[in-house]
Amino acid sequence: MTVAPASSEPIDGLWAVVPAGGAGTRLWPLSRSSSPKFLRDLTGTGRSLLQGTHDRLAPLVQDRFLVVTGRAHRDAVAAQLPEVDGAAIVAEPSARDSMAAIGLAAAMLELRDPDAVMGSFAADHVIADPAAFGEAVRTASAAARDGWLVTLGIEPTFASSAFGYVHLGDDLDGHPGAHAVVEFVEKPSVDVAEGYLATGRYRWNAGMFVVRPTVLLDLLAESDPAFAAALRAIAADPATLDTAWAALPKIALDHAVAEPAAAAGRVVVVPASIGWDDIGDFDSLATLLEDHDTASVTVLGDASLVQVSAATGLVVPAGGKMVAVVGLDDVVVVDTPDALLVTTRAKAQDVKAIVAALKDAGRVDLT
Amino acid sequence: MTVAPASSEPIDGLWAVVPAGGAGTRLWPLSRSSSPKFLRDLTGTGRSLLQGTHDRLAPLVQDRFLVVTGRAHRDAVAAQLPEVDGAAIVAEPSARDSMAAIGLAAAMLELRDPDAVMGSFAADHVIADPAAFGEAVRTASAAARDGWLVTLGIEPTFASSAFGYVHLGDDLDGHPGAHAVVEFVEKPSVDVAEGYLATGRYRWNAGMFVVRPTVLLDLLAESDPAFAAALRAIAADPATLDTAWAALPKIALDHAVAEPAAAAGRVVVVPASIGWDDIGDFDSLATLLEDHDTASVTVLGDASLVQVSAATGLVVPAGGKMVAVVGLDDVVVVDTPDALLVTTRAKAQDVKAIVAALKDAGRVDLT
Repeated sequence: MTVAPASSEPIDGLWAVVPAGGAGTRLWPLSRSSSPKFLRDLTGTGRSLLQGTHDRLAPLVQDRFLVVTGRAHRDAVAAQLPEVDGAAIVAEPSARDSMAAIGLAAAMLELRDPDAVMGSFAADHVIADPAAFGEAVRTASAAARDGWLVTLGIEPTFASSAFGYVHLGDDLDGHPGAHAVVEFVEKPSVDVAEGYLATGRYRWNAGMFVVRPTVLLDLLAESDPAFAAALRAIAADPATLDTAWAALPKIALDHAVAEPAAAAGRVVVVPASIGWDDIGDFDSLATLLEDHDTASVTVLGDASLVQVSAATGLVVPAGGKMVAVVGLDDVVVVDTPDALLVTTRAKAQDVKAIVAALKDAGRVDLT
Repeated sequence: MTVAPASSEPIDGLWAVVPAGGAGTRLWPLSRSSSPKFLRDLTGTGRSLLQGTHDRLAPLVQDRFLVVTGRAHRDAVAAQLPEVDGAAIVAEPSARDSMAAIGLAAAMLELRDPDAVMGSFAADHVIADPAAFGEAVRTASAAARDGWLVTLGIEPTFASSAFGYVHLGDDLDGHPGAHAVVEFVEKPSVDVAEGYLATGRYRWNAGMFVVRPTVLLDLLAESDPAFAAALRAIAADPATLDTAWAALPKIALDHAVAEPAAAAGRVVVVPASIGWDDIGDFDSLATLLEDHDTASVTVLGDASLVQVSAATGLVVPAGGKMVAVVGLDDVVVVDTPDALLVTTRAKAQDVKAIVAALKDAGRVDLT
């Protein structure tokens, strides 16, 4: 008889909450408001980021999924995840930031499964080492069951100014691998980030939380009792979703719960080296996909559609036609049927300016 | 009664010979073997380069045109030039370089009009000052009528290593504005070209000749009597074109006639400041089109299809879709329905490597 490795066994009572939102404007024209990042196969695996998130979590939670997405994307999410029961795909009437989305999932789970532990994992992240991820979630789930709000702390691979950080404190008694959180810190300058890395005591905050639903809602209630009550009322009577939703505060879970709870000593962190990436822009996508053995361009898609002479960077021939690149280093070329982007890896963050300009120019159809 | 300025009056007996050939591979993907440079509107005027050549010459020659093109392009040339009689569009069975093409035109004109002077002007050049061009051709025609082989010597605007040069000698008696030619020199290094410019006695050789047909053929007969005889035989019996053509030498008129004739003191040059450009690549096209008052990209085509953030260079949105360029200087982006090119102005010469690579890859359909 074969014994499966520990990391592939389901975790008792763990529910995967998957917020599937975000415009991903820095990945335009691949990512659109009508077809956002999480619905796209950005890694060339044949699976979208949402599907990859599902595939990674299914061994841990089996069929205990709750996906929260925008109403416009509900059908696309359901089509991409035939394994997930339709009733487990919750459509927000409008985008009201992460506290409302994840808080509603918490309120629904609180009613449904008193023993539930929920893990919230965004639909548009990439994790290269799912086994290590599974182990980190297992450790986090055990601490969460004891009443902690648990975050995964991603080992930083460089001094990024694009992420918030979590400051590791003492080891947590009874939970090897978990630490107290001293504090969450906002996106630092690169200089400050370098100082963080030098200490070895800071991790990236990737917004991944594991917690008992009741603990999360009770923490929210400490700062905003009406918000927590409103979420619980919607869960108790889903018919009120449409009318109640628009009145909810628009605030990130980090600000509403995690930061004040950390200040109160209620948050712990499980450091995790899992090959995490949020594919924030085409520069990070190029890093994710590049083959360090070749000094040419990386192609996401059909390489027979790309001709290169003395160039490096990322080419996405998603328009189905030949793309030729001559004499440019670290270039980014993204061809789609109705829009083409040409930029550099260094300027990849500025792509959002194009999306804004297109809106100003009345070309919302292209955003 | 209004008197037209001298430059717009026809020149007695002048025929325009227009060789319409050349692949223009450095302008791929705008220029293709099936739709070469001379058939394209590269200046955004609404007229192709061929049509622009016709428009510039018609005031000088009225209906005395002879266009020599490849068989594959005969119908397209005829469609673009409804003003030109179909019989005046000569289709070469195959490309055999400029001596055969222009020599055949000379042999046809020699038979047709004993008083003819012919001016040979490529179909894919741009001339910004047609009035100055007309005056130069008028001066050249007068010298040609006296038996000289006359070339126009283009005032160099920079020390180009991409053109051959013509070395000016003494003034020609009786023809103010014309000079003896000391010699033609092949494409020099930039250093050598700088030395040429410093003397003020060198001009670019743009391959524009004005000459009596008989003079041209007799000069050819001095070095290759069989070649001249073959051209005259074809003109006398056009039915032999197909069989005789393939046996003709493949040589440029410069080498076959102009250089030896210059050495023999039989060539003169009319210096001309006419805003000439041969649009050799996308760098020269960008120079030709750029608006020096703006520090953004130059658009050839529909500017509403281009969104730019912190970029300079040339964008051709000929694919009909939105093109966004972010953070690149001197970039060249040419979008067409079936192929996209991204390069820089400095690397524009290397585009021909892509055309070669496409042929190697079995994608002749795209070249």
